[in-house]
Amino acid sequence: MIKVGIVGGTGYTGVELLRLLAAHPSARVVSVTSRKEAGMRIDQMFQSLRGRVDLAFSSPDDASLTDCDVVFFATPNGVAMHDARRLLDAGVRVIDLSADFRIRDVAEWEKWYGMTHASPELVAEAVYGLPEMNRAQIAGARLIANPGCYPTAVQLGFQPLLAAGVVDSATLIADCKSGVSGAGRKAEVGALLAEAGDSFKAYGVGGHRHLPEISQGLARMCSAPVGLTFVPHLTPMIRGIHATLYARLTAEVDLQALFERHYRDESFVDVMPAGSQPETRSVRGANLCRLAVYRPQGGDTVVVLSVIDNLVKGAAGQAVQNMNLMFGLAESTGLDGVPLLP
Amino acid sequence: MIKVGIVGGTGYTGVELLRLLAAHPSARVVSVTSRKEAGMRIDQMFQSLRGRVDLAFSSPDDASLTDCDVVFFATPNGVAMHDARRLLDAGVRVIDLSADFRIRDVAEWEKWYGMTHASPELVAEAVYGLPEMNRAQIAGARLIANPGCYPTAVQLGFQPLLAAGVVDSATLIADCKSGVSGAGRKAEVGALLAEAGDSFKAYGVGGHRHLPEISQGLARMCSAPVGLTFVPHLTPMIRGIHATLYARLTAEVDLQALFERHYRDESFVDVMPAGSQPETRSVRGANLCRLAVYRPQGGDTVVVLSVIDNLVKGAAGQAVQNMNLMFGLAESTGLDGVPLLP
Amino acid sequence: MIKVGIVGGTGYTGVELLRLLAAHPSARVVSVTSRKEAGMRIDQMFQSLRGRVDLAFSSPDDASLTDCDVVFFATPNGVAMHDARRLLDAGVRVIDLSADFRIRDVAEWEKWYGMTHASPELVAEAVYGLPEMNRAQIAGARLIANPGCYPTAVQLGFQPLLAAGVVDSATLIADCKSGVSGAGRKAEVGALLAEAGDSFKAYGVGGHRHLPEISQGLARMCSAPVGLTFVPHLTPMIRGIHATLYARLTAEVDLQALFERHYRDESFVDVMPAGSQPETRSVRGANLCRLAVYRPQGGDTVVVLSVIDNLVKGAAGQAVQNMNLMFGLAESTGLDGVPLLP
Amino acid sequence: MIKVGIVGGTGYTGVELLRLLAAHPSARVVSVTSRKEAGMRIDQMFQSLRGRVDLAFSSPDDASLTDCDVVFFATPNGVAMHDARRLLDAGVRVIDLSADFRIRDVAEWEKWYGMTHASPELVAEAVYGLPEMNRAQIAGARLIANPGCYPTAVQLGFQPLLAAGVVDSATLIADCKSGVSGAGRKAEVGALLAEAGDSFKAYGVGGHRHLPEISQGLARMCSAPVGLTFVPHLTPMIRGIHATLYARLTAEVDLQALFERHYRDESFVDVMPAGSQPETRSVRGANLCRLAVYRPQGGDTVVVLSVIDNLVKGAAGQAVQNMNLMFGLAESTGLDGVPLLP
Repeated sequence: MIKVGIVGGTGYTGVELLRLLAAHPSARVVSVTSRKEAGMRIDQMFQSLRGRVDLAFSSPDDASLTDCDVVFFATPNGVAMHDARRLLDAGVRVIDLSADFRIRDVAEWEKWYGMTHASPELVAEAVYGLPEMNRAQIAGARLIANPGCYPTAVQLGFQPLLAAGVVDSATLIADCKSGVSGAGRKAEVGALLAEAGDSFKAYGVGGHRHLPEISQGLARMCSAPVGLTFVPHLTPMIRGIHATLYARLTAEVDLQALFERHYRDESFVDVMPAGSQPETRSVRGANLCRLAVYRPQGGDTVVVLSVIDNLVKGAAGQAVQNMNLMFGLAESTGLDGVPLLP
Repeated sequence: MIKVGIVGGTGYTGVELLRLLAAHPSARVVSVTSRKEAGMRIDQMFQSLRGRVDLAFSSPDDASLTDCDVVFFATPNGVAMHDARRLLDAGVRVIDLSADFRIRDVAEWEKWYGMTHASPELVAEAVYGLPEMNRAQIAGARLIANPGCYPTAVQLGFQPLLAAGVVDSATLIADCKSGVSGAGRKAEVGALLAEAGDSFKAYGVGGHRHLPEISQGLARMCSAPVGLTFVPHLTPMIRGIHATLYARLTAEVDLQALFERHYRDESFVDVMPAGSQPETRSVRGANLCRLAVYRPQGGDTVVVLSVIDNLVKGAAGQAVQNMNLMFGLAESTGLDGVPLLP
Repeated sequence: MIKVGIVGGTGYTGVELLRLLAAHPSARVVSVTSRKEAGMRIDQMFQSLRGRVDLAFSSPDDASLTDCDVVFFATPNGVAMHDARRLLDAGVRVIDLSADFRIRDVAEWEKWYGMTHASPELVAEAVYGLPEMNRAQIAGARLIANPGCYPTAVQLGFQPLLAAGVVDSATLIADCKSGVSGAGRKAEVGALLAEAGDSFKAYGVGGHRHLPEISQGLARMCSAPVGLTFVPHLTPMIRGIHATLYARLTAEVDLQALFERHYRDESFVDVMPAGSQPETRSVRGANLCRLAVYRPQGGDTVVVLSVIDNLVKGAAGQAVQNMNLMFGLAESTGLDGVPLLP
Repeated sequence: MIKVGIVGGTGYTGVELLRLLAAHPSARVVSVTSRKEAGMRIDQMFQSLRGRVDLAFSSPDDASLTDCDVVFFATPNGVAMHDARRLLDAGVRVIDLSADFRIRDVAEWEKWYGMTHASPELVAEAVYGLPEMNRAQIAGARLIANPGCYPTAVQLGFQPLLAAGVVDSATLIADCKSGVSGAGRKAEVGALLAEAGDSFKAYGVGGHRHLPEISQGLARMCSAPVGLTFVPHLTPMIRGIHATLYARLTAEVDLQALFERHYRDESFVDVMPAGSQPETRSVRGANLCRLAVYRPQGGDTVVVLSVIDNLVKGAAGQAVQNMNLMFGLAESTGLDGVPLLP
């Protein structure tokens, strides 16, 4: 059994890790920390875990973290960069679900996140945890930068096109729609049901922190800088991201065949039949990305539809997938839940 | 492996059975019928089952049903009463998720359901499939009448009080709220998002078909006729039932202790700590009933809060629980999914 | 033109007052205060008011309030009791939408609200602003205690029964369901879309502050103390309250005729035809209460269904109705908006 | 008073016309037809209209339609093209909210709508009812083709750019999100709350009927054919469209100033301050389009955000706006309702 610690267990990625790990046959959560809620039983905060998680939140200085085999950081940005070092030094592997180690250009990271990075040397070591792009490196890593939710949906959608070099990488557009759990379990007026319910809006149009992360990944796929317009929107649902991607074709290609071939061996990416339109609920609760590709009216514009559950393939599920790779388990261990529909 | 057939697989109880059975270690679905959709791949109708269910709907006359060990009817009322006989005669066990065999008084059934019953003799044989009331009989049954969703939530909530004889059984009130999946996957204007969304209403106040089913069960608990006012409501959510139950106390009793004792050995009924208020989402996707009991202002009125997922403990999950009992499996086999929250 | 001030304009009752008064032909809002947002344009906070409200929030000490003809307090509990005196002394009429002046028994108020009352003498003077119970007194009042949302729905529903003396007033039950805007525009985790969406729960079962307010009103109707069990619930919608009321009949009576006769002359209470089931959306945005009355299975229990928009008839609309009465305007002035459906 | 008839009053555009006209000071609805519901009181179908609309649905052959001054068709596509002629011949003006007269190229219309057009000669006469593009012609028209909902949001968003000639008209993208009321009040499985709720998906990606209508309008603005990729999506809300528009800049221009100048004199188009992000709820129930324009990262891509209420500015409100123009009323008569927020 892998001994697991979770730092910051009171948010949505925390409770989702607990849900997934409660059903994982080879992992056992031994410590969940929360500075604010230390001492409170976890199932008092999350009724859904009654009978399944028999722990209380412990203090973040909890010594037992260093006895873990792996620690997940489900913390706000700016925490893991301070605390990961101690754990790594103790031989613990670290999977950070925050943004601290995602951007290789530290100056760029500091600009977007408005902080001085506490551990730039770890940025260089960290492996970006998108297995469908990066599987081999993940297996040998000590420190994983788990991708953001938008970046996962967008990168998986563009990857076949950029890897094949069949689109203009300078004029990419990602029009993304997220459910509100993406904003986290934080008391904010804008995320109230009475504010975000029954309404739709864009946000961060002038610049969103996931932009540099996505651009970095896309550039790697095509070995060239990319031009990306990224517009995120808030949609009145709880879980799910739908990315609608636009690119200009520069070569004649059978798009459906290209996508099917590219993801042939991936168990968590589903290329749907031509003419399909994936619903976000088709992946609700599951570690899956479903894709469909179109060329409307036979023109030069290719449209890719990409859906994930932001809390699973966009966060906690992907983190467990990375853990499985790091510990030599079958990649899908504990990740075979069937999506909940309706 | 138990060979399973499902008659009527295009509704919500059908897809939920498929979801649960896809993860069941000792059962395998071999046939799913639909008169209207015969020939269509199941995962074309339900994207969530892509990669998990590799079957097409077959015709309801599908001969292979008689080769099954058990057949679930996930059909509208009035179908199983015609078709169950043929399967029982072939040695197949039958679990009917419709209302055909729930009411022992056939005349009463015919009044509420507006049909002549085709197999009154089977009504007498059928066992009411609420394990927490009826476990022993279920294990030996050929034919199970799987309870309705409201009846499950209401009966489990009232049972400790009526069994202990501490309330006036003549003045019971059940104020129930259901998500819209309870109305089924039928094209009806009233269940459109644009009609049922962002609004709340009562329905069936003058008389709802679940009333005689609930009354029958409650009467059995206290060995006397009961007086019940049952008011169902539609709430703008997908899954979940919340029953708020009112009864007049006739004896001094420690309500919390009474409930905890009554359900001490039940793995699918969770008596929450005093002062708790269960949310429907705390059981989303799981075969659970969570209960809380109150005596507001120390008065004579006892209030019970009872939540279930109408598609799981209120339908497909309970059906699988019954199957497990009938086939001598551990009752929780395949039913240990953690609720999906948020 | 009536010169109107609003103290505390950043919440939902504040923005709803602004919406209603923007369309009122005889009133003009001249000052809207907010301690926290002083200086910010109101239409920057509320996009819906762009082009309709050309004011910025001013400081609460804004001298211009004393120049108003009437000031609405749309503040948290505990503010108006301090600030109303100054305005009344300046000859300004005051309509308080908070709970400060609703409970005549000051000790009882202090118990439920956990504060010492700053102006007990004003409690004695204040008139409870439920026009359908209290019209004459309102017209002559200086200070109005505008009813709470639950109390409005429940009192209007029980009033015909209690006034006629046809039910047992000792065993009343009010099972109430509210949309989340009732919780106000406050940053609280429990009201997030990701928490309150797609789920249903009871709250305050052990005791809710609206209980003494409702009991006081019901007692007045029947000139005797009442026994009331009040269970509020949170339903995943934005606006609307649905109260389902239960009482035991003590006399034979034509309930439908009783209700129709009782509210014959009320323009804001709609007694629906027998067999109706009012939806909360049928009053969305409008100053209306719709009622239906039932006697299920011809038994002794009477069931009343009562719906309002909590922000209109349950708050801002009723406040404007009170203002109209106080200033001798037709009661429906500015309150004739048609409900928004769907 | 303008005497108004409505053909097909049982859908969402029908009930919205009734809501708006109930509050219109210069119009009176005298006849509302429905083939299926003839004889039923309108307020029995729509509780929201109780006390405001005192009519029953009449038969579509109702003679009184020819006595009207204007008749609105709120019918499915393919009805008005048959029935408009008779009314026009009787001197009645016609505003068609369906698509029958929107596409000037009849062959193109027949291709997209799958019918033979019954009145091609009326297509030539019909005036496209987008006042912000076409005001003068509308005033003198007998027959108005009221624009579709997506076309309204998209055309108003692109108009300033195309009229000024500052973008490449060959590579336009419109990524649009609609609430479910856009699908109409039809019993369809896909629009059930249990299907469309808490989920997000694209539809019609291969080709949607609004594409030729939008393209025709955009081409007119820039006097050249355009290339448009149009991807509509369904979002789990009731009312509202959010169009996110992308175009490549071909000239240096102050975008904010361009938009403000273009719509300076329009009372129903609100160009928001730079940096704004309009929410669909900011126009809920109101005849408004709110716009914001961006140039992310200072690149070549311009992004326009455009929101309307699909049932108001996208249908019934725009129809009333057109009626006002045709009858010489102030354009905003009866259209000054304040949006309902929250």
